[in-house]
Amino acid sequence: MKISTIAVIMAMSEEAEPFIRAHGLQRADSVFDRQLPMDVFLGKVHGLDVSLVVCGKDPRFGVDSVGTQPATLSTYLAIERFKPDLLINAGTAGGFQAKGAEIGDVYVGSGCIRFHDRRIPLPGFEAYGVGSYPMPEFHQFAATLGLKRGIVSTGNSLDMAPEDLAMIQDNEGEVKEMEAAAIAWVADLYQVPLVALKSITDLVDSGRPTHEEFLENLSVASEALQAKLTAAIDYCACTDLSLA
Amino acid sequence: MKISTIAVIMAMSEEAEPFIRAHGLQRADSVFDRQLPMDVFLGKVHGLDVSLVVCGKDPRFGVDSVGTQPATLSTYLAIERFKPDLLINAGTAGGFQAKGAEIGDVYVGSGCIRFHDRRIPLPGFEAYGVGSYPMPEFHQFAATLGLKRGIVSTGNSLDMAPEDLAMIQDNEGEVKEMEAAAIAWVADLYQVPLVALKSITDLVDSGRPTHEEFLENLSVASEALQAKLTAAIDYCACTDLSLA
Repeated sequence: MKISTIAVIMAMSEEAEPFIRAHGLQRADSVFDRQLPMDVFLGKVHGLDVSLVVCGKDPRFGVDSVGTQPATLSTYLAIERFKPDLLINAGTAGGFQAKGAEIGDVYVGSGCIRFHDRRIPLPGFEAYGVGSYPMPEFHQFAATLGLKRGIVSTGNSLDMAPEDLAMIQDNEGEVKEMEAAAIAWVADLYQVPLVALKSITDLVDSGRPTHEEFLENLSVASEALQAKLTAAIDYCACTDLSLA
Repeated sequence: MKISTIAVIMAMSEEAEPFIRAHGLQRADSVFDRQLPMDVFLGKVHGLDVSLVVCGKDPRFGVDSVGTQPATLSTYLAIERFKPDLLINAGTAGGFQAKGAEIGDVYVGSGCIRFHDRRIPLPGFEAYGVGSYPMPEFHQFAATLGLKRGIVSTGNSLDMAPEDLAMIQDNEGEVKEMEAAAIAWVADLYQVPLVALKSITDLVDSGRPTHEEFLENLSVASEALQAKLTAAIDYCACTDLSLA
């Protein structure tokens, strides 16, 4: 698979900032409707055309548009506008120390990306709710970049209700975050390959409140994310990802 | 407010079928990208141009694309393509017998439409997660059409976890469903007025499993929805909705 254009989807401006700075990406205004909150940055990274779509500030609430609804729309817009050969969803996430995660680890999503907050016990709808979207196993890619591999599980809450935990366990989830499955749904519709890179800000099973750990480690995790995202693009510029 | 074009967003084909049949709406192919599951039906209802977007069958799982991710995208697509003067989200929902709901009642969303499954305890993000989108009170409209008025609360699960119930109570939610807040988010971005019509299939606090009641009453509730949706469009053709 020859890759020349990559669209990167990120939810939070603080997650994106180190990557924008490292590569001198330029803000592009008027790419999407002015009513939409998404911010677009364009540039070249290792010779590839990179379009970064950040979900942007919610105009009503003034905070980053995290979660699956803006991620869905950002992914659709990125595909429509940039026709990327590859989508990368890069962001921060929670890990599980019981599964060996440490703060600042960067995972690549393997197995299937799934939802853990869509419980729909109607005939046929249960599987749709979970929405397993298969990823390549990425053995070589992960080994080269020093990434952990893990199943990514997505829900719209930062905390973890018992029902969410039960479904994360059913999902064999190792990385808990708030956008990837929605992005995977749109990528799957358009059959655009997706790589999910997730940098660990908090350990869900540490006993510490997630929001405290998240805020404490967001900056460090975003720097780690930047390094691995850059390495991932470098890898795509040099190596056939479909053999990864 | 002069209304000449209305876009209706519905999640399930069975919810939409009575309305399509009653008005002889015609399926329009190739309106959106062929990769997207959404189905589009067009026609005139009481002299107004009506575009119906049904979220469509998920190509991977073969069931209707319920929930907030497809609803987000359907709303964006409807606004982009049809530039409606008014959006109507029509669908089925759960009610609360403690608040006087009965099977087959049709509610119009009043107060604010809110999410009940986006718990984000970070500074500033809590309100974004709830996402209150204000609706007109619709007193005259509801009285004329014989609708109940109620606060609509949205989440991606058909069942109700204790955390969801707690947030529905915080939301003062009277109607529990799976799409409206996502649709309200996009409508709010574009400042397109929204009416949410919700026909009750199940009583969340009846003690009976929601999925049993839902399947038992889906057909009756969809017929009731059709009648009120038609009456709502008739109302918009004759009366200034902004005075409703």
